[in-house]
Amino acid sequence: MTNKIYFTPGPSELYPTISAHMATAMANKIGSISHRSQQFKDIYAHAVTGLRQLLQLPANWDILFVSSANEVWERAIQNNVEKESFHLVNGSFSKRFYEISLELGRKATKHEAPFGQGFSIADLDVPKSTELIAVVQNETSSGASTPVADINLLRAKVNSEALIYVDAVSSAPYPEFDFNLIDSTYFSVQKGFGLPAGLGIWLVNDRCVAKAVALKSKGLSIGSFHSIPSLLSKARTYQNPETPNVLAIYLLGKVLEEMNHHGAATIRQETETKAKLIYDYLATSQNFDIAVAEPTHRSQTTIIANTKVSSAEVIKKLAPFDMVIGSGYGNYKDTQIRIANFPAHSLAQVQALVYKLQELFN
Amino acid sequence: MTNKIYFTPGPSELYPTISAHMATAMANKIGSISHRSQQFKDIYAHAVTGLRQLLQLPANWDILFVSSANEVWERAIQNNVEKESFHLVNGSFSKRFYEISLELGRKATKHEAPFGQGFSIADLDVPKSTELIAVVQNETSSGASTPVADINLLRAKVNSEALIYVDAVSSAPYPEFDFNLIDSTYFSVQKGFGLPAGLGIWLVNDRCVAKAVALKSKGLSIGSFHSIPSLLSKARTYQNPETPNVLAIYLLGKVLEEMNHHGAATIRQETETKAKLIYDYLATSQNFDIAVAEPTHRSQTTIIANTKVSSAEVIKKLAPFDMVIGSGYGNYKDTQIRIANFPAHSLAQVQALVYKLQELFN
Repeated sequence: MTNKIYFTPGPSELYPTISAHMATAMANKIGSISHRSQQFKDIYAHAVTGLRQLLQLPANWDILFVSSANEVWERAIQNNVEKESFHLVNGSFSKRFYEISLELGRKATKHEAPFGQGFSIADLDVPKSTELIAVVQNETSSGASTPVADINLLRAKVNSEALIYVDAVSSAPYPEFDFNLIDSTYFSVQKGFGLPAGLGIWLVNDRCVAKAVALKSKGLSIGSFHSIPSLLSKARTYQNPETPNVLAIYLLGKVLEEMNHHGAATIRQETETKAKLIYDYLATSQNFDIAVAEPTHRSQTTIIANTKVSSAEVIKKLAPFDMVIGSGYGNYKDTQIRIANFPAHSLAQVQALVYKLQELFN
Repeated sequence: MTNKIYFTPGPSELYPTISAHMATAMANKIGSISHRSQQFKDIYAHAVTGLRQLLQLPANWDILFVSSANEVWERAIQNNVEKESFHLVNGSFSKRFYEISLELGRKATKHEAPFGQGFSIADLDVPKSTELIAVVQNETSSGASTPVADINLLRAKVNSEALIYVDAVSSAPYPEFDFNLIDSTYFSVQKGFGLPAGLGIWLVNDRCVAKAVALKSKGLSIGSFHSIPSLLSKARTYQNPETPNVLAIYLLGKVLEEMNHHGAATIRQETETKAKLIYDYLATSQNFDIAVAEPTHRSQTTIIANTKVSSAEVIKKLAPFDMVIGSGYGNYKDTQIRIANFPAHSLAQVQALVYKLQELFN
């Protein structure tokens, strides 16, 4: 038994009701039901309906369940890129999407911003031949975020055929996307949705579907069981081609029910209130500095600070108080800390963390 | 709350201790820990060590975690087949592996046996150019099984470079493979291991690894985050490239601990005892016939019967007694029933099912 509160950037604190929902799932033997049964289809439909409502997803969009955001990167390239993809890279995760395109034999080009910086979309020059442009809305590794208003400028920057992919792995459901101005977004459930890991969610519009179908009819391989057409043929009857992570889909539906009850607007407002608490503290701290210099590029959900004391020391000093934060990512492991601010984190928990950091480090 | 016992062929009855382990996992917040932490590596190592012990896996074999057996089919072709694969097909799942090879642009050929029949390996003619030969040890759709002794004859049938892939999705850990005579085997956890779905386990020997590396150095694409080299580079430090289904790996370790305590030999013996109970009943029943004619090809873990009364009627009549069995697969949905006999099913439960079937249908 632990009383730890996880402010790590994912896996992170579980949504407060998960434990109770899991107990109910076990009592009702949800782990034993057939993935082709009506009982399962109802569970699947409940999750999908909840997500549609929370994100206000238009009718020309579909929701696909895969196993991780890593998998989305691969499936996106397989299904939506014949030759060329273009990647805005400003950290480890945006870079990984770029590398995956290369590993799958595509011509991938990148436009880089330094770690910890966002992008100036207005100044961006996108090759005309690009079939897919990838932008990480919220870089989990650096805490740099691209405002939705800027993402909305992308459409005018690319040829009319290009698909705009927006990574919201560690920000959803916070960003309020204009789904008419992007073509796909995706996330994993162990960040903003407060679930255990093991499910990736891939949202695609009809343009993504059409592109996959077109590549397939050209005789190109778009993968197998998790190609868009294969996923879609099952998704539209509330199933997956394989036996999916049934428990995760069940829990997702339950959490979405609660999130919808709470309301997307409230969740967004609370996220900003909590983020402000953390940033306000960091701005005045003698030990920490906000890592992302440009205020409009600062993530509201994964907040990164440079630290004078090593991150290991910060983590160690918080441990007796049952508070867990993340170290920096990769090369920044020792010199940065990462604090997640997800819907699962209550205002009181964030306040307690800020007070404790203040007390321990000024 | 339900008292149902699931004899369905997967998802199926969970191992009896799963609910308690899940409660412990929730209390210890296993769903929140970092997938790069020592705590997670210990969980991963515990699962892998337990599986090595149960299966008596030699040192030149590695254990890889993916998301499903469907994914293994795809990764196997991507990583281990440049041009040609050969498939023994005798049901829906063996056929699907064959189709996936085609979907990935390989030349796949098949040797078919009728649904419900096994293979005579001794008479098999395998093309010399085959790089991978796929055999389903236990066809979940038909209940036809290939004895391990026959699988051990395959090596002499193929060229020395060919990799022998054995699907044990719905039979593991029952079959006692000679790991020197095969190159890969795989299964999902929601069958014989009694776990909730959402994890696929792929066992590969050094020959599979070498082949993947060779294809990659030829400049061919072997996938990205879930290529064998990528999985292996993380697996050897007890991690996955992506954030995996952490809870499933935790539960797997716990179940394996108990299975090892019980002993593989005992599990196998109990499986046979329970299977005999079911087959003995089917052989004398006036309503059911054993579907697989050849006794040595009858699965010990997924037992299929032809039924005079429709499968829907059988399922309906068992429902008030909290017993759930599977309908037939695909075209056999109405005319066959499927009864799983996994380690999670106790002798008493199987006995009770047999008595009830006897009472209801003679």
